[in-house]
Amino acid sequence: MTLRPADDAFAAMLEARIPGVVRPLGPQYLEEPRGRYVGSGGVVAAPRSTQEVAQLVRACAEARVAIVPRGGGTGLVGGQVMPGGAPLILSLERMRAIRALDVAENVLIAEAGVVLEEVQSAAAAADRLFPLSLASQGSCQVGGILATNAGGVNVLRYGTARALCLGVEAVLADGSVLHGLKRLRKDNTGYDLRDLIVGAEGTLGIITAASLKLSPIPAETGAALISVPDPSAALSLLALARDRLGEGVSAFELIAGQGFAFLRETMPDLRQPFAAPPAWTVLIELGLPRGLSPDQALTDLFAEAAEAGLADDGVIAQSAAQRAEFWTLREAIPQANRRIGAIASHDISLPLSAVADFIAEAPGLLARIADVRINCFGHLGDGNLHYNIFPMPGRARGDYDAQRPEITRAVHDLVVRFDGSISAEHGIGRLKVEELERYGDPVALAVMRSLKQTLDPLGILNPGAVLHS
Amino acid sequence: MTLRPADDAFAAMLEARIPGVVRPLGPQYLEEPRGRYVGSGGVVAAPRSTQEVAQLVRACAEARVAIVPRGGGTGLVGGQVMPGGAPLILSLERMRAIRALDVAENVLIAEAGVVLEEVQSAAAAADRLFPLSLASQGSCQVGGILATNAGGVNVLRYGTARALCLGVEAVLADGSVLHGLKRLRKDNTGYDLRDLIVGAEGTLGIITAASLKLSPIPAETGAALISVPDPSAALSLLALARDRLGEGVSAFELIAGQGFAFLRETMPDLRQPFAAPPAWTVLIELGLPRGLSPDQALTDLFAEAAEAGLADDGVIAQSAAQRAEFWTLREAIPQANRRIGAIASHDISLPLSAVADFIAEAPGLLARIADVRINCFGHLGDGNLHYNIFPMPGRARGDYDAQRPEITRAVHDLVVRFDGSISAEHGIGRLKVEELERYGDPVALAVMRSLKQTLDPLGILNPGAVLHS
Repeated sequence: MTLRPADDAFAAMLEARIPGVVRPLGPQYLEEPRGRYVGSGGVVAAPRSTQEVAQLVRACAEARVAIVPRGGGTGLVGGQVMPGGAPLILSLERMRAIRALDVAENVLIAEAGVVLEEVQSAAAAADRLFPLSLASQGSCQVGGILATNAGGVNVLRYGTARALCLGVEAVLADGSVLHGLKRLRKDNTGYDLRDLIVGAEGTLGIITAASLKLSPIPAETGAALISVPDPSAALSLLALARDRLGEGVSAFELIAGQGFAFLRETMPDLRQPFAAPPAWTVLIELGLPRGLSPDQALTDLFAEAAEAGLADDGVIAQSAAQRAEFWTLREAIPQANRRIGAIASHDISLPLSAVADFIAEAPGLLARIADVRINCFGHLGDGNLHYNIFPMPGRARGDYDAQRPEITRAVHDLVVRFDGSISAEHGIGRLKVEELERYGDPVALAVMRSLKQTLDPLGILNPGAVLHS
Repeated sequence: MTLRPADDAFAAMLEARIPGVVRPLGPQYLEEPRGRYVGSGGVVAAPRSTQEVAQLVRACAEARVAIVPRGGGTGLVGGQVMPGGAPLILSLERMRAIRALDVAENVLIAEAGVVLEEVQSAAAAADRLFPLSLASQGSCQVGGILATNAGGVNVLRYGTARALCLGVEAVLADGSVLHGLKRLRKDNTGYDLRDLIVGAEGTLGIITAASLKLSPIPAETGAALISVPDPSAALSLLALARDRLGEGVSAFELIAGQGFAFLRETMPDLRQPFAAPPAWTVLIELGLPRGLSPDQALTDLFAEAAEAGLADDGVIAQSAAQRAEFWTLREAIPQANRRIGAIASHDISLPLSAVADFIAEAPGLLARIADVRINCFGHLGDGNLHYNIFPMPGRARGDYDAQRPEITRAVHDLVVRFDGSISAEHGIGRLKVEELERYGDPVALAVMRSLKQTLDPLGILNPGAVLHS
């Protein structure tokens, strides 16, 4: 089906139907953080209500105009930008109401345009925790984090965005509104449409609001940086920590020596905890019930781990400020990576039992292709690594243009050999459509295509994302 | 589309293609626990592998024969029995392999016919917990608990069957095999087909195996029965407990005085903890990390609750045996109910903030219809009540046949008025198809019908369950 461009006449028609809905097409609507995809035109509309979203979608269906839903625009796989097309860019930025917050129920209902940090703050003001936490939380929005099933650092304990969502309200491709803002912990009334819309990256429906699950704030928190002999020891340390502290382990992050080196190179003022960067370090965050001391728990854990040869050195945060410093270090790594300039980035996950083997094998495979530096870091507790590849010192990323596809092929081939995923938390977007076609289960792909065809027969919802348009 | 009966010729054809697959049509394949639905015929096949399941489905697709997948047969909504038809009853009873158990990964891969208790035992033998726990665990099977997204007593802490499932292998309506046995905690490669198959009650695909999430066994466990002034106090006590103990609260069950009375009437030998049954009692189960004493935590909780007027009386289990006794009491209630004989049973859930109002309002509405006894019990921590209605002493359930529809209408109307669910954990099956049509979001229902049409165009998978066939 051929779609038509959203042109000035279309904009005028929308504006006539919904006065004030059209916005200037600023560059911010045509960009994504990695600069790989650049939009070339279209019309921006920023609806103020679910009804306006529905009106816009109906107008696009009538006119056969593509819709690219847009949240904070922080996605890393090009799901928010459609190069070469002139879509309706449907920005949820004005739908910023927190419709409800029920402390007793541990539920918060937010519209799609609410920024993640605003959800966290609203929860905190009510003495509750909204645990989803990721680097872009100051700008990513509720609709986007659900459309991409975002992850981040607390998945180990609290799950991904999907697990934190009790229900969604969404506008479907025909402009009908799915009323699914349930606040229930159990509801077995038919197929799980929530989880179908969540993670579909705007290709099956446009999320307009969601009911989100809050948690009690753990009474006592603490953090430690512990250097370990190797990734295998890190995984044993994780198992030990969970054995001793159960759900009390809120986060378990891996930092490679290369990460500390990049931080030193690009942000020399950032204080580092170890005089010489250890080859492998884990950042453990604990959130414990009243009556348990995180400091004591981390001391005991370190002692037990050191005794078992699982830990070399460690620093336990002695204050909230030091704990924040540890996290600043961890969260600065992606920024340092950007300053160095990656040749290729990979957001992969592996069965926990395959993580150490993957980390051991991959460098040898890459060395056959090119001389590179590897910064392997991420959410070890979830088996989720950001496996990013950098030029050798003195060389530019452009020098590796010819090798890039081969590098990614080697990484993803190895991931798939270990039954892993080529997209752990970032999604498919436009960046990984070919990779999904290559590595996905053909039966699953056939089902996905038939679902897309059924729920969006005109193909107007974010065409080219997740699946070929 | 008209389907054809599975007759002797069809059985002979299957047997010729897959020697040994056909089994005698014993009465156990035509029954369900509440006796409302009785099968009238058909052919039973018990495949030994996923490939045999696929062959059977293809044979049914070719011959236009309906398939009723069957696990332990313990479902309470008639999903496992198709009256008036002669389907292929596809029993998963021979697919009983635990294909893998990885302690470090906390993953167990089981075939569909493995009994829940066998999963629990295998996990326990590896020093792990598979937390799903429900009354029928001695006979219900992995495929069935996932197809119905089963709940039970530990959902508060660990989630429903869906939350405990990392991936499924399933045979689709055309006989293709969805290979989704992932062992990953994060995987954003396209639409969530797992959650679409899970909870679809065998109408979109037949689950043949699943990878299941295990947890560490909590180091310290304890339980208490605490009588409370009213349901509102019970909910405040829940909030207090979660505030003090976080995820340490594994279960929080409500028992009505009527439940104790039924136990006394039908099982007089069962020891009861309170001399006079309190109007409302909660059963709290704790699972705490090393270093915290459940006994102390429950003592402190009771003291704080009593001080705040939230608790009247309490018994803390002094031994594993006494803790087991508490659970025996709780789990005996459904059996006592069966002996009394319910007029109507309702598996409902409510937003937590609406639970107390519902419990306060419902009896008045019912009193206008008939003189009845109410046993309201269940998983209060999830807002999930089993709201069951019984004859007055000396009367039979049959006396209320005329009032039954009106009773259920009143209960469900009130549930929906409070934004609750008419099926919290049992599913829709055949029992609640009309209720789903009546109360469901019309947009959601239209999407469900289109998904069914897309994934099962011949309508052979469990026709008449969830949606009208």
